[in-house]
Amino acid sequence: MSRTYLAGIAGFRGYSGAELLRILERHPSIEPVLLEHRAGSPAEPEPLNHASRWVAIRCTPEEVRAEGLSAVLLATPHEVSLELAPRLLAAGVRVIDLSGAFRLSASGFERWYKMPHPQPELLPEAVYGLPELRRKQIAGARFISNPGCYPTAANLAIQPLIEAGVVNRAAGLVCDAKSGVSGAGRAVSARTSFCEVAESFSAYAVLEHRHVPEILMVSELDEDELSFTAQLLPINRGILETVYFRSGVLHSERDLLAIYAARYAGEPFVYVSPSGSLPDLRAVNYTNRCAIGAVFDARTGRGVVVSAIDNLGKGAAGQAVQNLNLSLGLDETAGLV
Amino acid sequence: MSRTYLAGIAGFRGYSGAELLRILERHPSIEPVLLEHRAGSPAEPEPLNHASRWVAIRCTPEEVRAEGLSAVLLATPHEVSLELAPRLLAAGVRVIDLSGAFRLSASGFERWYKMPHPQPELLPEAVYGLPELRRKQIAGARFISNPGCYPTAANLAIQPLIEAGVVNRAAGLVCDAKSGVSGAGRAVSARTSFCEVAESFSAYAVLEHRHVPEILMVSELDEDELSFTAQLLPINRGILETVYFRSGVLHSERDLLAIYAARYAGEPFVYVSPSGSLPDLRAVNYTNRCAIGAVFDARTGRGVVVSAIDNLGKGAAGQAVQNLNLSLGLDETAGLV
Amino acid sequence: MSRTYLAGIAGFRGYSGAELLRILERHPSIEPVLLEHRAGSPAEPEPLNHASRWVAIRCTPEEVRAEGLSAVLLATPHEVSLELAPRLLAAGVRVIDLSGAFRLSASGFERWYKMPHPQPELLPEAVYGLPELRRKQIAGARFISNPGCYPTAANLAIQPLIEAGVVNRAAGLVCDAKSGVSGAGRAVSARTSFCEVAESFSAYAVLEHRHVPEILMVSELDEDELSFTAQLLPINRGILETVYFRSGVLHSERDLLAIYAARYAGEPFVYVSPSGSLPDLRAVNYTNRCAIGAVFDARTGRGVVVSAIDNLGKGAAGQAVQNLNLSLGLDETAGLV
Amino acid sequence: MSRTYLAGIAGFRGYSGAELLRILERHPSIEPVLLEHRAGSPAEPEPLNHASRWVAIRCTPEEVRAEGLSAVLLATPHEVSLELAPRLLAAGVRVIDLSGAFRLSASGFERWYKMPHPQPELLPEAVYGLPELRRKQIAGARFISNPGCYPTAANLAIQPLIEAGVVNRAAGLVCDAKSGVSGAGRAVSARTSFCEVAESFSAYAVLEHRHVPEILMVSELDEDELSFTAQLLPINRGILETVYFRSGVLHSERDLLAIYAARYAGEPFVYVSPSGSLPDLRAVNYTNRCAIGAVFDARTGRGVVVSAIDNLGKGAAGQAVQNLNLSLGLDETAGLV
Repeated sequence: MSRTYLAGIAGFRGYSGAELLRILERHPSIEPVLLEHRAGSPAEPEPLNHASRWVAIRCTPEEVRAEGLSAVLLATPHEVSLELAPRLLAAGVRVIDLSGAFRLSASGFERWYKMPHPQPELLPEAVYGLPELRRKQIAGARFISNPGCYPTAANLAIQPLIEAGVVNRAAGLVCDAKSGVSGAGRAVSARTSFCEVAESFSAYAVLEHRHVPEILMVSELDEDELSFTAQLLPINRGILETVYFRSGVLHSERDLLAIYAARYAGEPFVYVSPSGSLPDLRAVNYTNRCAIGAVFDARTGRGVVVSAIDNLGKGAAGQAVQNLNLSLGLDETAGLV
Repeated sequence: MSRTYLAGIAGFRGYSGAELLRILERHPSIEPVLLEHRAGSPAEPEPLNHASRWVAIRCTPEEVRAEGLSAVLLATPHEVSLELAPRLLAAGVRVIDLSGAFRLSASGFERWYKMPHPQPELLPEAVYGLPELRRKQIAGARFISNPGCYPTAANLAIQPLIEAGVVNRAAGLVCDAKSGVSGAGRAVSARTSFCEVAESFSAYAVLEHRHVPEILMVSELDEDELSFTAQLLPINRGILETVYFRSGVLHSERDLLAIYAARYAGEPFVYVSPSGSLPDLRAVNYTNRCAIGAVFDARTGRGVVVSAIDNLGKGAAGQAVQNLNLSLGLDETAGLV
Repeated sequence: MSRTYLAGIAGFRGYSGAELLRILERHPSIEPVLLEHRAGSPAEPEPLNHASRWVAIRCTPEEVRAEGLSAVLLATPHEVSLELAPRLLAAGVRVIDLSGAFRLSASGFERWYKMPHPQPELLPEAVYGLPELRRKQIAGARFISNPGCYPTAANLAIQPLIEAGVVNRAAGLVCDAKSGVSGAGRAVSARTSFCEVAESFSAYAVLEHRHVPEILMVSELDEDELSFTAQLLPINRGILETVYFRSGVLHSERDLLAIYAARYAGEPFVYVSPSGSLPDLRAVNYTNRCAIGAVFDARTGRGVVVSAIDNLGKGAAGQAVQNLNLSLGLDETAGLV
Repeated sequence: MSRTYLAGIAGFRGYSGAELLRILERHPSIEPVLLEHRAGSPAEPEPLNHASRWVAIRCTPEEVRAEGLSAVLLATPHEVSLELAPRLLAAGVRVIDLSGAFRLSASGFERWYKMPHPQPELLPEAVYGLPELRRKQIAGARFISNPGCYPTAANLAIQPLIEAGVVNRAAGLVCDAKSGVSGAGRAVSARTSFCEVAESFSAYAVLEHRHVPEILMVSELDEDELSFTAQLLPINRGILETVYFRSGVLHSERDLLAIYAARYAGEPFVYVSPSGSLPDLRAVNYTNRCAIGAVFDARTGRGVVVSAIDNLGKGAAGQAVQNLNLSLGLDETAGLV
């Protein structure tokens, strides 16, 4: 098959990188190239069962141009993205960074990542890649910062409520988030060993997860208006978040669902469940979809919204490909389900 | 082994009943007897691998006395408990009912179970069996209504906060609850088939679970002060609940933990995690323990409490044996870990 | 997208049918149509989240022609396939039957399915659709009987050994097979409820599985030369079979692997692991691949072959689409990974 | 509780060690003491939620005597057991070693563990602790080598067949073994991380597992008569082994089951399934039981035996306590279910 664009994948051995490869190997217009950026390191075996080209380069502008790449997807830790992104941008290719390196302001980064941002001058250029909320800025953009997995599910659930002005912000929102284990990445640790996770469940990073500032940034909530807890599900993939709010102005569940229906009308990847039905992870895993359902008790003014995505799909690789499609001017849904 | 008391188990083929059997088979003072109350029904095979006596009786007073039973544990649906409890009480044996038949007031029962209570005159006699909150009433009681699994974890987490007066009730509490599949009982259904549950996660009975009124009854919260959601974990057993609250009077996480430490000092089955640590299900499954941990952000006044139990242990069979020990005047911890 | 062929899917609510839908919705040349063959039954909700056309028909020749179908895939129980296949063939459409209705001889069917075959005259027409062994007969065929999941993995592992004449048949072969739960289909049963399967493992249908005669038929082994056991893995999908044999003529593991390499050279969906490596289910799930690895101890003449497929992919829907591609004269790999 | 004997547990942080603690904490006559043998190493937190005494000692004879220990259970890697066992025996305490350090002959050890045995003079003293086959030697023994988990399930299934002389040894036996992940121990590795194991299944150490010589030693089979494969189940605990054999002398399944019934009559921990029923892991996990079922096809002379244990129970800690009971002259079943 001859496809129009070549896109490099750095970090293809991690879970998000492998998912990028899986998606791009069947993309109609983009052909993946595996980038082994740790040139000079001891040879490692190529990943099993892939048909794509594999090159060991240092991602210098010359090398990137020589490979004919139109874009590079960085599925790398933020430290590596901070090193590679400037080099790639200087080479003139489009960059989609899946790490947290370029999502926050310089001061936000310093607070949550415990280090001064080494490339603050690049931050204004990085478009936050949540297409349902920022499609215009993303179209044609050359540098896109792909959202975190938890914030993607949270913001798609919360932002329509804030926009519609129906939340009692004084009472605060709660976002109780649960993620499959692949969200923790492929690094080996006792915390993600099978016998610690299977047949168990636990909370972590309560009230202080690095993804919180991304939610606040998009929703423009104040820090004391949101309580967020991340929890580890004994499954491979999928994120489900349960959002609780109170409202003095909403009249019915029908009105609540109408807010989502209106906000996401025509969106190819957001599915709003009918009244009486709530999404589960089976409906979204291995897709780029976000499924949203809601319940409202008009008598007491309490609302619950459930938002589900595949953390490796809409929460990482799927959304990155959606952003790359928009950046390249392709059909936004190309190669995605 | 010659043991002092004989206790019948009705409903021993369900998950809670099987767990009662597992616990009582190693209890030092109580010997289980399996009651097949559907006398006359076609013969069914006895459960595999148990050494206990099995009798098919209709639970008439004469039969119960003839068997020499001191107590009967009802691990039966509430419809069956409603039928058996009066008959057993008339026979003079102690009754521990694990169903929801006798937990609520007559009006509460009618609202949540969609039927008028057929035995309202028995309700005042039924002691709500949460020993950590009602130990005095339980000691020696002849009719104990064993709490629901969700309310046990919720009330042990919430009640100390309400007692201490530290919750901003106007802002409301959220209880986000997750349960293993055995909580749904053994009846076969598509919703609990392996391929629907494994590698998935979903919410159900949002804001309207039958266990909500039990939480309100114990905590004396108003209905509009609590949002409760039940969710299905892809595991066999275990409940973890994440409780969110706001406080204008608490000064620190240390103060929050001190409330629990004081409230549960000397309790054999409540474990309060040290600061910085939160419970997971591995620490409580196959035990009668409840493990509680807490986080508080003093700057914004937001608190999170995590409460974990085994839904078949402290949430059902373990607590029933704890109650039976108290009813019979035995050591409260006999036969339990 | 305008695609060349319309293919009906009967039984689209089962696991294999849903997988057919998932595959065909991204097939470049075939467009799926969901067939509700139980016309007249009470209306059921359409399956969630699919974009395909849905028609309620009785599959009469007139209806089938009116819908413009080129083919129908039967993901139905064998009783339903026995009823629909003749009607569809009479309508002139291609039929791929995923059930066991047309796989065996009339006498074999009667023995293993405990009923006389009601359509024996159709049996000679039904081509056994294992492309790697019967590609020529399948190309252009109008009636294809799709192999069972267990026999697909078994025959791809065993047949090359038999062909090469390296097996000591007197000592017998053992095929120890393990399958994910979706292999049992979507019908609700206690045996496949979550709490019976999770954290457990068990054997069933030992020495007498209905799939045994399919293995014997293809391999031409005698019944006393093969011991086959099916076992239930606590996972959603995937089959791994471990085949044991003895050989007096093989000299080395290298020779054993060379047999597979030669037999499957150029096959797009069979992957032979290099020496020292064995397949796992992660490498084949959600694909149409069969992965095969082998170990041989030359000193004692004992060999072990491991064969892995996705029971819903190469074991059912994937292989059905591969067969449909061959039947229609399309690229055999179209729409498949 | 005042209990008669103190037993040290070395390696209590591993899975087998933690299970020893769980069992001994409810043992009527033995009280556990946690031994931190790496004295001088940086302080580590004590294990959560245990009530037992914890001492940091180097296991010198003086220290061991000072602690008043009657026995020490070594749940340690074989390298550590090789170091500690002589020191403990010199101190005069009973030693139950759960590692492979003292199971094989010196030459067998050298072949399978790739190092010369450093304490060959101790080997004759070490009794192989499989009570159902060696009860007399174990009773009162001071040094017991606890069998491996795979060989326990295998030998209990195979040995009665060999003893009864019904196996056609020329055709060979196959033992296809599957184990939960805790069998791999607690050391962190990529191979046992959640996302590599969950929803997957794989074989390892085919034909060359270190446990093979233990099976040959007990059964007195020759190496070319047994093919053994170990496989990784995506569950926490439990081993199920499927044994295949051929017989020219057995007449019926009834005769096969009678062999097991006779061999294990009166055994408290071996359960032979009735005809038509086969064990699963739910029946044995969290117990010291071995459950055995069998199928025989008299027409073709092929037999299948299924053997199930908890790898941490009868396969490790449970059996170690059974051995300790025998060594101390206690009731063999004390503290065990």
